[in-house]
Amino acid sequence: MANFELTREFIEELKQLIENKQKDKLKEILDELHAADIAEIYEELTLEEAKYLYFLIDDEDKAADVITELEEDDRQKFLKSLPAEVIAKRFIDNMDSDDAADIISEFDEDRKQEVLSHMEDVNSAGNIVDLLNYEEGTAGSLMAKELIKVKESWDVPTCLRSMRRQASEVDDVYYVYVVDNDGILKGTLSLKKLLIASPKAKIKDIYNSNVISVKADTPSEEVANIMNKYDLVALPVIDEIGRLLGRITIDDVVDVMREEAEKDYQLASGITEDVEASDNVWLLTRARFPWLAIGLAGGIMGSRVISGFMGNLGNHPQMAIFMPLIAAMGGNVGIQSSAIVVQSLASGDMGIETTWKKLLKEFTVAFFNASILSLIIFTYNFIIKSDIALTLTVSVAMFSVVIFASLFGTFIPLLLNRIKIDPAVATGPFITTLNDIVGMFIYLTIAVYFFSIWG
Amino acid sequence: MANFELTREFIEELKQLIENKQKDKLKEILDELHAADIAEIYEELTLEEAKYLYFLIDDEDKAADVITELEEDDRQKFLKSLPAEVIAKRFIDNMDSDDAADIISEFDEDRKQEVLSHMEDVNSAGNIVDLLNYEEGTAGSLMAKELIKVKESWDVPTCLRSMRRQASEVDDVYYVYVVDNDGILKGTLSLKKLLIASPKAKIKDIYNSNVISVKADTPSEEVANIMNKYDLVALPVIDEIGRLLGRITIDDVVDVMREEAEKDYQLASGITEDVEASDNVWLLTRARFPWLAIGLAGGIMGSRVISGFMGNLGNHPQMAIFMPLIAAMGGNVGIQSSAIVVQSLASGDMGIETTWKKLLKEFTVAFFNASILSLIIFTYNFIIKSDIALTLTVSVAMFSVVIFASLFGTFIPLLLNRIKIDPAVATGPFITTLNDIVGMFIYLTIAVYFFSIWG
Repeated sequence: MANFELTREFIEELKQLIENKQKDKLKEILDELHAADIAEIYEELTLEEAKYLYFLIDDEDKAADVITELEEDDRQKFLKSLPAEVIAKRFIDNMDSDDAADIISEFDEDRKQEVLSHMEDVNSAGNIVDLLNYEEGTAGSLMAKELIKVKESWDVPTCLRSMRRQASEVDDVYYVYVVDNDGILKGTLSLKKLLIASPKAKIKDIYNSNVISVKADTPSEEVANIMNKYDLVALPVIDEIGRLLGRITIDDVVDVMREEAEKDYQLASGITEDVEASDNVWLLTRARFPWLAIGLAGGIMGSRVISGFMGNLGNHPQMAIFMPLIAAMGGNVGIQSSAIVVQSLASGDMGIETTWKKLLKEFTVAFFNASILSLIIFTYNFIIKSDIALTLTVSVAMFSVVIFASLFGTFIPLLLNRIKIDPAVATGPFITTLNDIVGMFIYLTIAVYFFSIWG
Repeated sequence: MANFELTREFIEELKQLIENKQKDKLKEILDELHAADIAEIYEELTLEEAKYLYFLIDDEDKAADVITELEEDDRQKFLKSLPAEVIAKRFIDNMDSDDAADIISEFDEDRKQEVLSHMEDVNSAGNIVDLLNYEEGTAGSLMAKELIKVKESWDVPTCLRSMRRQASEVDDVYYVYVVDNDGILKGTLSLKKLLIASPKAKIKDIYNSNVISVKADTPSEEVANIMNKYDLVALPVIDEIGRLLGRITIDDVVDVMREEAEKDYQLASGITEDVEASDNVWLLTRARFPWLAIGLAGGIMGSRVISGFMGNLGNHPQMAIFMPLIAAMGGNVGIQSSAIVVQSLASGDMGIETTWKKLLKEFTVAFFNASILSLIIFTYNFIIKSDIALTLTVSVAMFSVVIFASLFGTFIPLLLNRIKIDPAVATGPFITTLNDIVGMFIYLTIAVYFFSIWG
């Protein structure tokens, strides 16, 4: 199959077919498409069109997958328009427990109860209820209960027989989990090992006991770092005494990683909600206003700083020439320093140096950059024949501001991380604004000093 | 096994053991650790210590994995100190073809030849040479040649027998690929399907023909988006006429995604090279200086703009009070707009609107934000009893600059993307600096106008 690409022409054609109720042609199209493609199409249709199209999907697993793949707000709108019984029997019954729990957790309490009570598979319903208890952002909330479990005391044929029974429940089988009689996780067995094992082999002789697992309350970010570091496609989740609870698959963790990266990027750019270019105007405005308001408040504070030096500016208006430059350089250096710290914290690559050593290193880096930048701006002012007070002011201020902003940009995220606040909030706009203000103050103070001597 | 955490104490202890050459104790420690952990430790050791430790690893696959997991610069330093024959026989022979090709591609031509000529497995050497031909950043450069291939004409037992033979070559088996007699990819067969299939079944009746694949020249970002969208753990790569060439596994794509996200984040923060907090001072300085130099150049241009208004500033120094505020707001709005476009382009969520519609939407968002911000700053100036010329200047300039910076921030990355330049270079510092300058110019021009009336 060729990879699907959404075009305006395709959507127009589809809307036409829906309007004319050409079921057979539509079913043919739906058959060719993957659930993720159908979900993408849904976002371009009206609710009525989407509903009509949806109930033409014959394959129940695919129908359930489409719901899973929808964006959260589209899904909520869509599900709201359907009775609880349809939701339970057409979707939830056909989903993996982790996807089902995610979707049910979006409902209010009453709807939750109603949907769960309509489920045909009581075992699945129980799994979902279990999963709903885990806090969002933990390994427990990411895991699915479906997995293939074998006992270490079995031999290969017993294992294969049991796996055949269990496999119908599990969508993707990457590993088989080996447990003891108490359900304690002992290790994993790759399907490849099973494939090449002698039929007489005992499970306990061929499984890999050096298995990496996480507890149910491990934070999602740590789960993502572990799966990435050890190149895992599935990670078992255990309880406090080591009993196997479920497994997390890589696709869910990739989503966590994407969201985390997008969130950090957006925070660094001053966007406070998860938005996309295709979102509506209201969402886009709301995501952007808060930071602009903070920037405005910061700017107003900056204007108070400048007002305080009004007399000096009146006497020496040339002071104003380099004011924005120094403020901007403070902002730039601060954002660089904080970005490196935030990213290293996120990926667990901080190294084992102490905070003092980190600050010392940052000071060294800043010292080099500050010296060169300061020299350049000195030379520039020398060439354009600025007066000596201004030349010295700009050079000394540049040096001080770069050093100060670097240390500040390094220290703030480390501090936030220490007190368990996401350091990503400190980058971008916040650091920039603060360094703008401080930079302006440093510059003007130095200016007043030098102009009092040579002015 | 508990998850490993690198501590200063552990490294000190290890260095002690290496110094005292306590082989048995060290082997015991190495046995307990995963390759990724050993790679992490390496970065904290001297080259001599690392070499000593390295040759204590008994398991050849693990030894090869450690090399794969090292950071590129550490790996190069380490491999440089070893003869080509050791590299070929101890590492390259024991690696998957994609990892081997990645590492060999880091060598110069002579060393490449020398290492390849020392390889024992000619078939592997051939695979590596094939892979070296694909351009970096394409599907071909990400794929491994190792995979399990069966013919659609076979029955299940024939398939299982062949798989047993092939499996010893392949590390992780997620899918079996079904091809016809010409090697054309027909579909995939999940191990789960094979597990539950009747022994009499024919492959052609049980495989999934609706398979997603990519051509060898598909860009890595697209590969990542496809694997993410369709939740795939492995993706087959085909040539122009559909013959199966290899497969890409999710772990390699997760690395691509991480790198891409980190690069975008760093560009947005003004960092020009991939650095971590644990890198050395020289690398950190080098990664940060280029943007600071550009920021400085932008700032100097800004200072020229202000110099041009020196006469006006001399007469009305209060103009200077809000100059940095307006410049900063232009920068902030611009970075927000460009960040949303860059991120949506990267994740393929741009929607199907035309460029004009996107700009119109951006204009609407900007209009709301501009109106509110303008009103707030007007009210503020009214309350602090600023003179009328300054009040009007700041309010009108705020409105104009926010609108201008939004459109500019949206348009530039769309334009860069159209002409095939990575739009991420446009975000962050670049947009900020440009909007700083333009913002200052707009502000001062409006100021001159209003002060000429009410001044």
